[in-house]
Amino acid sequence: MTETIDGWVVPVRLAPPSLDDNTADADRLKNVLAHRIGADHIAIDLPLLKRLPELIRMWNYECRCICFRTCDRWQLIDVASPEGSEPIAGIAVDLGTTRVVLQMIDLETGRTLSESAFDNPQAAIGPDILTRIHHADRPGGLDELNRLIVDGINAAVAGLCTDAGIGRERVFLMAVAGNTSMTHLFMGVSARGIIREPYIPATNTPGVLRADELGISLNVCARIFIFPNVGSYFGGDLISGAYFAEFHKNEAIAILVDVGTNAEVLLGNRDWLLACAGAAGPALEGGVSEIGMTAGPGVIDRILIDPETRVFDIHTIEEQPPRGICGSGMIDLAAQLFMSGMLDIRGRLVPEACGERLYEIDGLRHLVIVPRACSATGEDLTISQADIDSLIRSKAAMYTILETITGYVGIGFADLATFYVAGTFGSFIRPRSAICLGMIPDLPESTYQALGNSSLGGAARLLIERGAIDHIESIWDRITYLELNVNQDFMNRFSAAKFLPHTDASRFPSV
Amino acid sequence: MTETIDGWVVPVRLAPPSLDDNTADADRLKNVLAHRIGADHIAIDLPLLKRLPELIRMWNYECRCICFRTCDRWQLIDVASPEGSEPIAGIAVDLGTTRVVLQMIDLETGRTLSESAFDNPQAAIGPDILTRIHHADRPGGLDELNRLIVDGINAAVAGLCTDAGIGRERVFLMAVAGNTSMTHLFMGVSARGIIREPYIPATNTPGVLRADELGISLNVCARIFIFPNVGSYFGGDLISGAYFAEFHKNEAIAILVDVGTNAEVLLGNRDWLLACAGAAGPALEGGVSEIGMTAGPGVIDRILIDPETRVFDIHTIEEQPPRGICGSGMIDLAAQLFMSGMLDIRGRLVPEACGERLYEIDGLRHLVIVPRACSATGEDLTISQADIDSLIRSKAAMYTILETITGYVGIGFADLATFYVAGTFGSFIRPRSAICLGMIPDLPESTYQALGNSSLGGAARLLIERGAIDHIESIWDRITYLELNVNQDFMNRFSAAKFLPHTDASRFPSV
Repeated sequence: MTETIDGWVVPVRLAPPSLDDNTADADRLKNVLAHRIGADHIAIDLPLLKRLPELIRMWNYECRCICFRTCDRWQLIDVASPEGSEPIAGIAVDLGTTRVVLQMIDLETGRTLSESAFDNPQAAIGPDILTRIHHADRPGGLDELNRLIVDGINAAVAGLCTDAGIGRERVFLMAVAGNTSMTHLFMGVSARGIIREPYIPATNTPGVLRADELGISLNVCARIFIFPNVGSYFGGDLISGAYFAEFHKNEAIAILVDVGTNAEVLLGNRDWLLACAGAAGPALEGGVSEIGMTAGPGVIDRILIDPETRVFDIHTIEEQPPRGICGSGMIDLAAQLFMSGMLDIRGRLVPEACGERLYEIDGLRHLVIVPRACSATGEDLTISQADIDSLIRSKAAMYTILETITGYVGIGFADLATFYVAGTFGSFIRPRSAICLGMIPDLPESTYQALGNSSLGGAARLLIERGAIDHIESIWDRITYLELNVNQDFMNRFSAAKFLPHTDASRFPSV
Repeated sequence: MTETIDGWVVPVRLAPPSLDDNTADADRLKNVLAHRIGADHIAIDLPLLKRLPELIRMWNYECRCICFRTCDRWQLIDVASPEGSEPIAGIAVDLGTTRVVLQMIDLETGRTLSESAFDNPQAAIGPDILTRIHHADRPGGLDELNRLIVDGINAAVAGLCTDAGIGRERVFLMAVAGNTSMTHLFMGVSARGIIREPYIPATNTPGVLRADELGISLNVCARIFIFPNVGSYFGGDLISGAYFAEFHKNEAIAILVDVGTNAEVLLGNRDWLLACAGAAGPALEGGVSEIGMTAGPGVIDRILIDPETRVFDIHTIEEQPPRGICGSGMIDLAAQLFMSGMLDIRGRLVPEACGERLYEIDGLRHLVIVPRACSATGEDLTISQADIDSLIRSKAAMYTILETITGYVGIGFADLATFYVAGTFGSFIRPRSAICLGMIPDLPESTYQALGNSSLGGAARLLIERGAIDHIESIWDRITYLELNVNQDFMNRFSAAKFLPHTDASRFPSV
């Protein structure tokens, strides 16, 4: 892709000054640029102002302006020669609790220049965000956490620059999408209010900051956009995902589901948006069962069970000997167990159907998925009744959340034009299996759409779309956050959803 | 003055957060403040954001917000405890080529906390701005000039803080009014375009900068407002003066004249403004004649000559023995010489009237003002015909400028409701004498109003008036700069104005 995009790099040509037009250099440039981009005012940092008069004369009053804006202000970050082959770059960052993914983009062409990812080094303090926030309360703890992630990103930026063959000073923009807690820790701002009732972040709208004040080494005047969050449990990563899925454009009603530690759900269209978050995740992410793990070589991602012979047809990633099972594999497994009669509608393993795959350890039923002879570990790969119970609680929670949020605005599942599933979970899950379990509504499979890393996708898109800030602001502004009070009504729905696929089987005619 | 002023310090009380209202801390504060001050968006620097959650809880959701704005953005600079006796301060700066004057002000009460002034240390490089701008072109020259003025201001700030008994971190705002060149050198921005055709400044609108990027040591998040300039020869000091004289409010047409190296003139009212600048100054400032000097002890500031006896009645500042004469003294002297017949209408010394006070040195007539027996120097204090010629050229230039600018918009001098005279010159000049010379129009003396240091006055006023930025912007925005092309028409007017008081004596009926 090399066509011109309507991005943050804007070529301008100025009328040279004369005795009849003695407008100052910076104002001359700002006036023309403001007209081009529809800005009222444009700010220029002092380091650029100092260089500007010489540069625009050297380039004969022609240059490319690298600009950016926050909701209320345009900023001219730098100027570049009217033509030049070295890219003008920006970096999109998906700031995950577990993993951080970066993508360097040519701001003029939208081309990806380099990519990288690294495990969040804050994991050395604690794998989960709660441990980290507690650690931040200790003397020096917040600084330590902040330094870990800032150093990590700086190292990754250095690698991206090397891979792309450019210097750091050619990186003018960064867009960071993360959950509310990670966003705070990245800024070095305490997240202690987020985990304590009444769950108050320090800020919902970090906006645009200077790279240098965040300790990130890019161009001296570079700006970093941090996606706004809606609250403690609905972060900038979701806003980025909603922007990526074009909730600011869609006339038809869509839903976006992101499953991580929590399930976060966004429902609506370009006119209204409703968001909620709830604990539905761990089992779905493969984080609960003993053999559960995130996707990787040798991890079971798909299972078919012949309903007649009950023979297991197991697929692993890269077709390596099986060593565990990921979230989507678990969902496939449970769906197939149910369809083949090995699980009953209450989610209990049926001894008659399971046969010799079933045995008890300490009074708890275990089902052998891969016998030791075929596993990579030399041990039986098993799941227990407890694992299945956990999965079913998660799927029931998910369905209940979906039922609650749609019910809140009085629409049915059939009104959903698109059902976006974000993240790794969304990329691997087979909707048919999730429908069989009654985890997601019984909609045509074409309704379901995997978004991939939509948090990164939204951040990357912002880097090449000048209208992005308005779109993101309009999404953020229209979101109503629905607090999922676990009341009697919710509990009743939840109980009904704990059956496979549901107490009310008429909701799942295709199963 | 201790009543509450509508300034930059705004007390707010927030509703404490709850499960029903989980708006983030910063957004909670911004929402309330935005409503109070009529802002769409408010920016917060990272250092404040980091401290904010703890502070607002400590103060039980009540605090004083120290805010500021530029044309397009509000900034929350800091928060202070809801009550406290230590002042919240700002500093107004008149950034003169020769002298820098500072005034520290309590932002809540408008009270002056301390004052100071120092000679511009850039004078070590060159007394005039031209020499300095040339010096800035040498390697390291610009940095050197910048460091001199920045260090000078920092030292003065330290003194102001000591005098006021507060720490630097209690200074949150600074407003700087200077001419275009000084403004550039203060920012460390090259002024080379200002003195070279077509006379282009680097910027007309420096706006609001962070104190730390300018190297000024105040509060860590302090902001510095730099008055905008209209062009190379009409600077922020004049805009500040116009704001001080309330050109944004006046319905009646007024004129403002500031005499320094150049004469700068602003004409208009709240609806339109016309500005021009011209070389009319040196002789009026007392900078030309051999005995000319700026006002100080022993300097002649007023002279009366008895028209009958031609006896001189000389007044000196602090009534010390005479050692020289200042600008206003020169104007008094010339007016009195003219009124007593010692100068003719062409400005020539009349030997018959001057008598023994007149003698020639190298063929040039000199008039003894103070004989050596009475002077502080032990020498005759004399002025030459050349000094008088120079004064008359200056007065003619001044009158011609005034005639041209009013003529340009088709109004007569009689249409001027107020004639503001700024600066030291304005404070000492006696309008009657200037009228006698035909330097300023023959208007009732009550029309003339001395503004004092209006550059400092405007800067100080900005520190206590929240509406200031709009007013200043509206003044700046409406100014049309009139280039005084020295054409035949101008030269004809100038020639006519070289007579005392004027070729057309009917213009000065009172003389």
